[in-house]
Amino acid sequence: MKKKTIITISREFGSGGRMIGKMLAERLKIPFYDKELIEIAAKESGIDKELFEDNDSRTSKGFHLFGALGYSLGGPLSAITELSLNDRLYLVQAHVVEQVANQGACVIVGRCADYVLRERDDVINVFIHADEKDKVARAKTSYEVDLRDVEKSILKIDKRRANYYEYYTDRTWGKAENYDISLNSSTFGLEGCVDIIMELMKKEEEHGR
Amino acid sequence: MKKKTIITISREFGSGGRMIGKMLAERLKIPFYDKELIEIAAKESGIDKELFEDNDSRTSKGFHLFGALGYSLGGPLSAITELSLNDRLYLVQAHVVEQVANQGACVIVGRCADYVLRERDDVINVFIHADEKDKVARAKTSYEVDLRDVEKSILKIDKRRANYYEYYTDRTWGKAENYDISLNSSTFGLEGCVDIIMELMKKEEEHGR
Repeated sequence: MKKKTIITISREFGSGGRMIGKMLAERLKIPFYDKELIEIAAKESGIDKELFEDNDSRTSKGFHLFGALGYSLGGPLSAITELSLNDRLYLVQAHVVEQVANQGACVIVGRCADYVLRERDDVINVFIHADEKDKVARAKTSYEVDLRDVEKSILKIDKRRANYYEYYTDRTWGKAENYDISLNSSTFGLEGCVDIIMELMKKEEEHGR
Repeated sequence: MKKKTIITISREFGSGGRMIGKMLAERLKIPFYDKELIEIAAKESGIDKELFEDNDSRTSKGFHLFGALGYSLGGPLSAITELSLNDRLYLVQAHVVEQVANQGACVIVGRCADYVLRERDDVINVFIHADEKDKVARAKTSYEVDLRDVEKSILKIDKRRANYYEYYTDRTWGKAENYDISLNSSTFGLEGCVDIIMELMKKEEEHGR
């Protein structure tokens, strides 16, 4: 078994999952990809960056047909022209996720990376969630949130993430079985979660030998 | 915040979750409750032990009405007479789970213990899952499984567990947000999972201070 050096992080909005990923990348001295992926995807595809930024809110019908038509993620991006814009955005991002994973150890937040990289054996998939009160406190500092009803905004953003994930992966977002480890950041703290993930990468290495 | 000394373990069939709980209890030198709870429940209620053993396969309609009728888990068991047998079995077990938790540090496997003890702040909830191939290998040694179709037997048993859990708790079984930590035992090994849980109980203690 290959040593697992690529970490994907899926997370509830306001759970601190992004920050955990960032701290983890800093401690491990490896690249961190979140919005950075969008920059690369925009550059490579020539599609406007802003379209990617809002892309997890929209899905389009018929994407699952796509596989049946014999398109492949491994193919050139130029082949992806007859699809809806949203499906193209997804595929371009998936392609970039594969590219950065090919370059070696890194932390990737969101972008269905756990699914995109499912055939690799050097990936560890993490899901971060948190208690409502902590998510609300954290969400208040985000520009994405309507401050008049923070709880509702969180629900809405997570619902969008879940729909996006389920649409493109046929899996249920937030279901423990999709991830190697799921953690409640309210129980352990952000630093605590980073420590646990560092620790378990060691465990995995011992077990995988 | 109170130190968390009670560990509940929910698990997929064949994931090794029960064994992880047993090893954990041995290392921590605290009581382990799985079938042991059934013995106590049978003794306390006078209901035949065998009925408890098969009880997670059956649920009865109208249980949710029960709360509305003002029954309380805290009340005497003798009050639980006008309910269906299955609901009575659930309530007796829930009562026993509360009793053993009141006695102090312990590991409890199954029995919706995470839900039953949800109001306590000294509980850590764990979910264990595993890859299909490992579940199949482990399941083959169980008397509950039809050896002619092990995969199907596993699905069936987990479906029963999920239905039972969802019926009595109104939560989705196996959803990461219900647990403090969820682990894939195929990634880390059973010993590895025990180590991680021991480690994170320390983290939680540091964070909770």
